[in-house]
Amino acid sequence: MAKITPLSGFPEWLPGERIVEQHVIDTVRSVFELHGFASIETRSVEPLDQLLRKGGETEKEIYVLRRLHADPDAADAGLGLHFDLTVPFARYVLENAGKLDFPFRRYQIQKAWRGERPQEGRYREFLQADIDIVGRDTLPFSADVEILLVIADALAALPIPPVRINLNNRKVPEGFYRGLGIDDVAGVLRAVDKLGKIGPAGVTKELVGNGLADEKQVAQCLALAEISTNDTSFVGAVRALGVEHPVLDEGLDELAQVVDAANDNVTRPGLIRVDLSVARGLDYYTGTVYETTLLGHEGIGSICSGGRYDALASDGSASYPGVGISLGITRLLGPLLSRGVLRATRSVPTCVLVALPDEESRRECARIASGLRSRGIPTEVAPEPAKYGKQIRFAERRGIPYVWFPQSDGNDEVKDIRSGEQSAASPESWRPPEADLHPTVECDENGR
Amino acid sequence: MAKITPLSGFPEWLPGERIVEQHVIDTVRSVFELHGFASIETRSVEPLDQLLRKGGETEKEIYVLRRLHADPDAADAGLGLHFDLTVPFARYVLENAGKLDFPFRRYQIQKAWRGERPQEGRYREFLQADIDIVGRDTLPFSADVEILLVIADALAALPIPPVRINLNNRKVPEGFYRGLGIDDVAGVLRAVDKLGKIGPAGVTKELVGNGLADEKQVAQCLALAEISTNDTSFVGAVRALGVEHPVLDEGLDELAQVVDAANDNVTRPGLIRVDLSVARGLDYYTGTVYETTLLGHEGIGSICSGGRYDALASDGSASYPGVGISLGITRLLGPLLSRGVLRATRSVPTCVLVALPDEESRRECARIASGLRSRGIPTEVAPEPAKYGKQIRFAERRGIPYVWFPQSDGNDEVKDIRSGEQSAASPESWRPPEADLHPTVECDENGR
Repeated sequence: MAKITPLSGFPEWLPGERIVEQHVIDTVRSVFELHGFASIETRSVEPLDQLLRKGGETEKEIYVLRRLHADPDAADAGLGLHFDLTVPFARYVLENAGKLDFPFRRYQIQKAWRGERPQEGRYREFLQADIDIVGRDTLPFSADVEILLVIADALAALPIPPVRINLNNRKVPEGFYRGLGIDDVAGVLRAVDKLGKIGPAGVTKELVGNGLADEKQVAQCLALAEISTNDTSFVGAVRALGVEHPVLDEGLDELAQVVDAANDNVTRPGLIRVDLSVARGLDYYTGTVYETTLLGHEGIGSICSGGRYDALASDGSASYPGVGISLGITRLLGPLLSRGVLRATRSVPTCVLVALPDEESRRECARIASGLRSRGIPTEVAPEPAKYGKQIRFAERRGIPYVWFPQSDGNDEVKDIRSGEQSAASPESWRPPEADLHPTVECDENGR
Repeated sequence: MAKITPLSGFPEWLPGERIVEQHVIDTVRSVFELHGFASIETRSVEPLDQLLRKGGETEKEIYVLRRLHADPDAADAGLGLHFDLTVPFARYVLENAGKLDFPFRRYQIQKAWRGERPQEGRYREFLQADIDIVGRDTLPFSADVEILLVIADALAALPIPPVRINLNNRKVPEGFYRGLGIDDVAGVLRAVDKLGKIGPAGVTKELVGNGLADEKQVAQCLALAEISTNDTSFVGAVRALGVEHPVLDEGLDELAQVVDAANDNVTRPGLIRVDLSVARGLDYYTGTVYETTLLGHEGIGSICSGGRYDALASDGSASYPGVGISLGITRLLGPLLSRGVLRATRSVPTCVLVALPDEESRRECARIASGLRSRGIPTEVAPEPAKYGKQIRFAERRGIPYVWFPQSDGNDEVKDIRSGEQSAASPESWRPPEADLHPTVECDENGR
């Protein structure tokens, strides 16, 4: 057999790491369901013309499928793996519009694929957790607030370092730029987005050089991008720049509503922040925009992004406005697992290993294990009647906290192999402390 | 936009159907973890040479990947989507052998892809739930028994029609055929496998015609395939055919052990059955073989199959014997959902809809919802302050059982919209009956 090597960009976890990932999935799912979001999964493939609709730089990253010995006109020709969960969700909404109730609240936790150049934080196969609320023809603005509160709940429930959710609203820079007399709003947004990389001088050079704005306009655009506040004081700061436009008024009002509601409901100070330099995504979102920084790990990039679309999808008879956010689970966990920040307390679900005294006792041991399992205690029987020392090491290597010693007289004993404490126990009544029942996930911000 | 039509062979579920699927996944996962199986996921792709190792008819069904604008020598060239979870698991074991503890017990619930001709029970994208126990160099025979008991527990926990697990052991026909003086054991197995399709006369014609066996040998092979018992009486029935071979002895002994242990632990009579006509898979398994029939839906084929491999994988220094079984979740659910046999009690997780009296009450409603959620009650706030009748219909359409009516004096009321019963309630203390908290899954064998 050829030598087996990992495939760059296609991460796989060891069992202990998978427990961390599963814990993250279970946690966000539980929060999403508490907020009434229904689960859906879409097929992994979409017709290429659907995938290419979004256009731009994703095109070259799409994985196209072909059967090894296919007819060229087979029904599964022209299919590609989805590169996000938004394109398939929009298609699902149109395909099933007659069977869904709107506003439709869904979550979707699935893999997506992009043929990106692999590097930390960039994967060719990655897991996303998306929530969206989509209406038919209309969607109340309150949905923009709700999405923020749901994701804030989800992030707060995760055992990860603190995060900050950065907010902007497409209508703020758009209205501001229009108020300044700028025509090519998208062009200016793209240039200002490079602020972090090329600095104010670079942005100025690009905008003035390309005739998109004059120096005075650029100075105003840069002043707008510098505004960042924890509360609604950003409104006054923008007003102080003296630019007027009805779209700007609308944007400031919406953004203030989101901030007010968030500060009303979110208990951790500093969780949200208005940051008018947030530009990424503004070219396809039409209102509120969310991005999320993992504090202390800023290099990962935004772990959780989204916003409002006026039309997530549309067909001949209706349009479907939506607002949503996408948590990049692999993007979040990849670095935290490799840096040792997140760890599971053990690598198996097993709480109790029933020691096997001899081959003849196997049925009795199975009966004990079955009794423990019937009360929800994950249990396995040792695979072989080795010496007890060896069976204890079997448990130790896996982090199994308890070893059960069956006795022929029925006076069984159970040992906590961490403390060495051993006591009499019956499979019908013994219970471990709740904290030992399942592996848990620990966060150590200093890593290993 | 082009007309949107479903893709044949790539099933997608509506939210209510997805609740059924998620319930099945949660249930089997919980059983697997109670038995100490650790979760892993493998990447969706494998190098083509790995996928083609299994050879045979899967070859033409593999989906090969290519990036839309790829260099021909890119690192992700020559990759295909996995068509089962066994090939990637074997590769994962070899790749991580130094980091895993053996015997290694893993479950894996993931999608797989095959370019099959779509028909009921055949999908191009489908979900599988696999469990395997794999040892390094050796694996106790007790693992064969254990896999059967785990899957019996999992099937018993599912809200599906009754099943029957059919058992055989590769060593029984192999030893029997060898005892008869047959050389081409695999050839005879393949012919006998067609018994159901072409009948005894067809099998005889094929075997005699191809010189694989004479008429007397064929009569004995057919007599063996007719043996089917609920207990270990198959041993006597085989012995009565008068054929002797050490491999036959070993096979009968192993199969009897599995049956004995199953009958010892499994409470539902008739759950397992020895069926010596079970032939499918015998050409790649080396011992115990499992297949599963869904009673009343036999046309689906086996929903759960597996067996023992002497070498699931091997490298220069070790071989990895394994035993496992694979539950075809999509194969099981596709027909049961389309026939209306399985249904969720509602299409959303939401248990309570908080009615919105007017826009000004939104924060108060959010506070009520938050209080209910903090005690684990899935709750959403109505999207708009419509008339109460309309808000109640919003809940009805989704199957949400309770509507909460906030009162400005704080004397809130909650209505069970199924019974019409309405009573005073506080978000800090009210609880729905446990059965209403989450959607449940109902099985109606008569379908819709």
